[in-house]
Amino acid sequence: MMIQNPVSAPRPKPRNRRMPLRLPDTARTKPLIDSKKIPPLAPGNIRIIPLGGVEEIGKNMTAIEINNDIIVIDIGLAFPTDEAPGVDYIIPDFTYLEQNKEKIRGVIITHGHLDHTGGIPYVMSRIGNPPLYTRNLTSLFVKKRMDEFPHLPPLNIIIVENESKVKLGEQTVRFFGVTHTIPDSFGVLIETPHGLLVNPGDFKLDLDAVDGKPTEEEEKRYSIFDHEKTLLLMTDSTNIENPGFSIPERETIKNLGEIIKSIKGRLFIGTFASQLERMIHIIGFAEKYGRKIVVEGRSMKTNVEVAQLAGMLTVKKDTFVQATEIENYPEDKIVVLATGAQGEEFAALMRMATKTHKYLKFKKGDTVLLSSSIIPGNEITVQKLKDNIARQGAKIISYRTSEVYIHSSGHGNRGEIEWLHRKIKPKFFIPIHGSHHKLRQHEELALEIGMPPQNIVVPDNGSIIEVQDQGEKIVMLKDKASNRVIMVDSVGNSDVKEVVIRDRVMLAQEGIFVIIAIINIQTGRVIKSPDIISRGFVYLKEAQDLLRQVRLVTKKKIEDSTARMHPINLDYVRNILREEIGKFLFQKTHSRPIVLPVLIEV
Amino acid sequence: MMIQNPVSAPRPKPRNRRMPLRLPDTARTKPLIDSKKIPPLAPGNIRIIPLGGVEEIGKNMTAIEINNDIIVIDIGLAFPTDEAPGVDYIIPDFTYLEQNKEKIRGVIITHGHLDHTGGIPYVMSRIGNPPLYTRNLTSLFVKKRMDEFPHLPPLNIIIVENESKVKLGEQTVRFFGVTHTIPDSFGVLIETPHGLLVNPGDFKLDLDAVDGKPTEEEEKRYSIFDHEKTLLLMTDSTNIENPGFSIPERETIKNLGEIIKSIKGRLFIGTFASQLERMIHIIGFAEKYGRKIVVEGRSMKTNVEVAQLAGMLTVKKDTFVQATEIENYPEDKIVVLATGAQGEEFAALMRMATKTHKYLKFKKGDTVLLSSSIIPGNEITVQKLKDNIARQGAKIISYRTSEVYIHSSGHGNRGEIEWLHRKIKPKFFIPIHGSHHKLRQHEELALEIGMPPQNIVVPDNGSIIEVQDQGEKIVMLKDKASNRVIMVDSVGNSDVKEVVIRDRVMLAQEGIFVIIAIINIQTGRVIKSPDIISRGFVYLKEAQDLLRQVRLVTKKKIEDSTARMHPINLDYVRNILREEIGKFLFQKTHSRPIVLPVLIEV
Repeated sequence: MMIQNPVSAPRPKPRNRRMPLRLPDTARTKPLIDSKKIPPLAPGNIRIIPLGGVEEIGKNMTAIEINNDIIVIDIGLAFPTDEAPGVDYIIPDFTYLEQNKEKIRGVIITHGHLDHTGGIPYVMSRIGNPPLYTRNLTSLFVKKRMDEFPHLPPLNIIIVENESKVKLGEQTVRFFGVTHTIPDSFGVLIETPHGLLVNPGDFKLDLDAVDGKPTEEEEKRYSIFDHEKTLLLMTDSTNIENPGFSIPERETIKNLGEIIKSIKGRLFIGTFASQLERMIHIIGFAEKYGRKIVVEGRSMKTNVEVAQLAGMLTVKKDTFVQATEIENYPEDKIVVLATGAQGEEFAALMRMATKTHKYLKFKKGDTVLLSSSIIPGNEITVQKLKDNIARQGAKIISYRTSEVYIHSSGHGNRGEIEWLHRKIKPKFFIPIHGSHHKLRQHEELALEIGMPPQNIVVPDNGSIIEVQDQGEKIVMLKDKASNRVIMVDSVGNSDVKEVVIRDRVMLAQEGIFVIIAIINIQTGRVIKSPDIISRGFVYLKEAQDLLRQVRLVTKKKIEDSTARMHPINLDYVRNILREEIGKFLFQKTHSRPIVLPVLIEV
Repeated sequence: MMIQNPVSAPRPKPRNRRMPLRLPDTARTKPLIDSKKIPPLAPGNIRIIPLGGVEEIGKNMTAIEINNDIIVIDIGLAFPTDEAPGVDYIIPDFTYLEQNKEKIRGVIITHGHLDHTGGIPYVMSRIGNPPLYTRNLTSLFVKKRMDEFPHLPPLNIIIVENESKVKLGEQTVRFFGVTHTIPDSFGVLIETPHGLLVNPGDFKLDLDAVDGKPTEEEEKRYSIFDHEKTLLLMTDSTNIENPGFSIPERETIKNLGEIIKSIKGRLFIGTFASQLERMIHIIGFAEKYGRKIVVEGRSMKTNVEVAQLAGMLTVKKDTFVQATEIENYPEDKIVVLATGAQGEEFAALMRMATKTHKYLKFKKGDTVLLSSSIIPGNEITVQKLKDNIARQGAKIISYRTSEVYIHSSGHGNRGEIEWLHRKIKPKFFIPIHGSHHKLRQHEELALEIGMPPQNIVVPDNGSIIEVQDQGEKIVMLKDKASNRVIMVDSVGNSDVKEVVIRDRVMLAQEGIFVIIAIINIQTGRVIKSPDIISRGFVYLKEAQDLLRQVRLVTKKKIEDSTARMHPINLDYVRNILREEIGKFLFQKTHSRPIVLPVLIEV
């Protein structure tokens, strides 16, 4: 007796149906590219490889190679869309770095957000655990994250300041402070014989008012570029589609202060935990106006802790209270600071809104302020969050309908990006941080302000760009560095294979249909009626007639094909059966589940 | 020998994991409510039941019941989000109508869009195929759709005009023209002894300029309300969150005319096929400026055909050309009108952008104009569309970055909605067309302009609202009409059960794991090594060690539990096995696939 192993059975192809079967980009197989097949860097040239963040927003990582030194800027992650079900993160392909790890002199992390730090636990030990340079707050976030990976070797973190100058191999690297939504954000300057390589990281300008100019202090930060030659600028394209200057964070903070001061009843504020600067201000206002603060949500709690650890937030002993103590205070004296403004199903706000939170729920008289924009892809979940809050009778103040600004992006708008270009006046330019169309719009901006087209390179992940001829020209090589999509599942000890994701997408669309038949290998007859296991296809309780027919078809197809066989080839029978049952089910239901026949011989 | 049938095995519960397992609202089981358990309507009262469209945008359907007459307004569909994989449409629950079909005097369809007509094929024959009243163009769209359902009885369609007055049972019904994005849109007026019931359908105001006032003609249309008393207004909340007046369609059309006149190279215009009014103008401009038109995409072609059939579009013989003929004309003389501006994977624009279209692809010099906003939920697919177009070197003009208006919504903004309230001055008000938070914002608007709170009812799908006491008060009954979510799959001959969707969501997140073991029913021993089928869980080729362990655990768990059994109860063994293997897999992989043990006894 033997069971044919159906594990390696070929998979049916996805089909074009009315509701598109969305095969994710992330599930299209890309080969690993062996770095040994890439021509080595010629002495004197400078190589720039954006390994992530230039076909998406997220998973930023760039390698800079000069002679025998490689410097890595940022190791981020991205969150997958619905297209890659069950995947937690996507990280950049670090193969080029892994295969050249002896040249890596250091990793620089520009600030503490996950799209710049999140890949660190998965990548650092694989690239030889080089020294990691960053500012203090960022280092605390990185360490906090590494605590979740106790089996990994400790990082060698070197704290630097905006004014520091460090030597990475033969290269001199400096930094400069930038305005973003988290303190200790900085940009990177790498000195080359032909001028600076500049990567400001994520930035916006600190503007003195709406439609105003950069503050004096901000002007001063960038005054370094008045006297230095910049060979190459690579910078953020996130908000290139937004015209003008962004809303100043100081405007948002002022408005939040007014609301915290004046609002009647309990005030719930939902924002990104990554908006650390704003959270510090909100906590300050609450204290000033005598409100107690409840912090809800793991990432919010962690970030408040880290801010205290860094000395950036000092609160009186009794300012923070627990959710269970909330009834002890007048309603006008409460601020709840919570995660989940994007409508994430299990985050604090959604649990309160759906009455599944252990201690907190909304009621008439509450105000929920969503101090955040909607990340593309989250529109429907945010709508659900609002619907659920509105059902409890609470008032909602959201970015879109608020009369005053209650949120501002941490990324500069087109106007600020243009300001940066004009200030830095780079010879060459590589747009980064954005999907392809955004990079192209950023290229157009550079062309508009007079940069020659041949001085701009619009990269993909893995593009190898070189400054050659003594800094006289910039080119993109034909060769690319490995640029697979690496998906991280569960606790991150494995990468998820594309084939698994492809199966999940197919399972989600049409389900699975397993038929088990027992065959007398001598006579080719089917013993008893075949059995069926199915999930996600049709409602089986109401499909008894269909199942009966499938059993009959199965028996007939098996016996028809074995009748002419000596000896019986079950592999062949199985293939016939897969095809015929697939056709039959499609004809009856217009669905194409994954069909898996299991033939047991006795 | 016998196989335990695992078809009816209990399903594991979804679990809280990092990436939320999004169990759709559409997959939460709601019971069918028997209409016989709902108290009958008392004579003299008026019953209004929004059966769809008030917890969502889409699937609009409202029942009005007066004495022995039921009038149905619209029978729409909604498109499911990613939460209900493999589902094509969602339609309103028509149980109340089905169980009261002898009272239905007619169905009124306010215009030809799918969210007002799409449920017709699934619902009409089930509610007794009552006469359907609508204008000519709408009737053509309905008939076109019915052609896809040849097995259904023909509809009894009665064409009416804006000025018509019809008797539905004892009720007098009139109509009035409204401005929307498709011609022949109208609103409904039902006369009652206490005043009019008014449902304007989807509407915006025809404004004379941006920030202007309604045109004289538009004012005239609504002048009927100057002299008539309105008992109840129920109206659209779609754009309640947008302040002020909407962008006039005439402004958009003027700008499109300029672009068609002046743009160099080939011009591709992507828009909703439902924007029929705009399409007619675009075709007119193309003809005027000597450009040939290629129409691409099934719904676009259908709608152009219907417009011609209705006499609303007349074109010269050689204006339309085939995609294959495009090379015969100068590039400045081409307009391609295509579906897919939402980034739908298999629509014309995306196929061109991904180079999978049979005849057309983009190149440098082309301009792609996306004359549409992004429907919430489509942000990521639209971004992909733009990225793919930008990769081919074509220029993109989109709603968001265009310097002039190239799209305007068909639904009025808050300012227009307020104008309507002030014009109609209803005694009672029910906000419809929108998710709950939008309805609440619409309620706030009504309160702001002075309506007493007790005169407003914010409904859910299935809410039963009555005007009682000779038109003196409005109440929501405790009873609700059946309000399940009815999902339509494939060609629509079945409704999809929630349990199937729940399984699909689980399959998508973690996959399925089937273990097949053959047991000697006398000794309880496992014969041979158990076999495994799995999809969407882990990459099996790299998990041989895991599979080996699972086989060992399976054998051990079965034999441990059968050792103490006389006789052997395979049901019990199967339950043990499901639980133990589930635990084991979670421990090893942090994933929870659906585990299905199949035990075969010999």
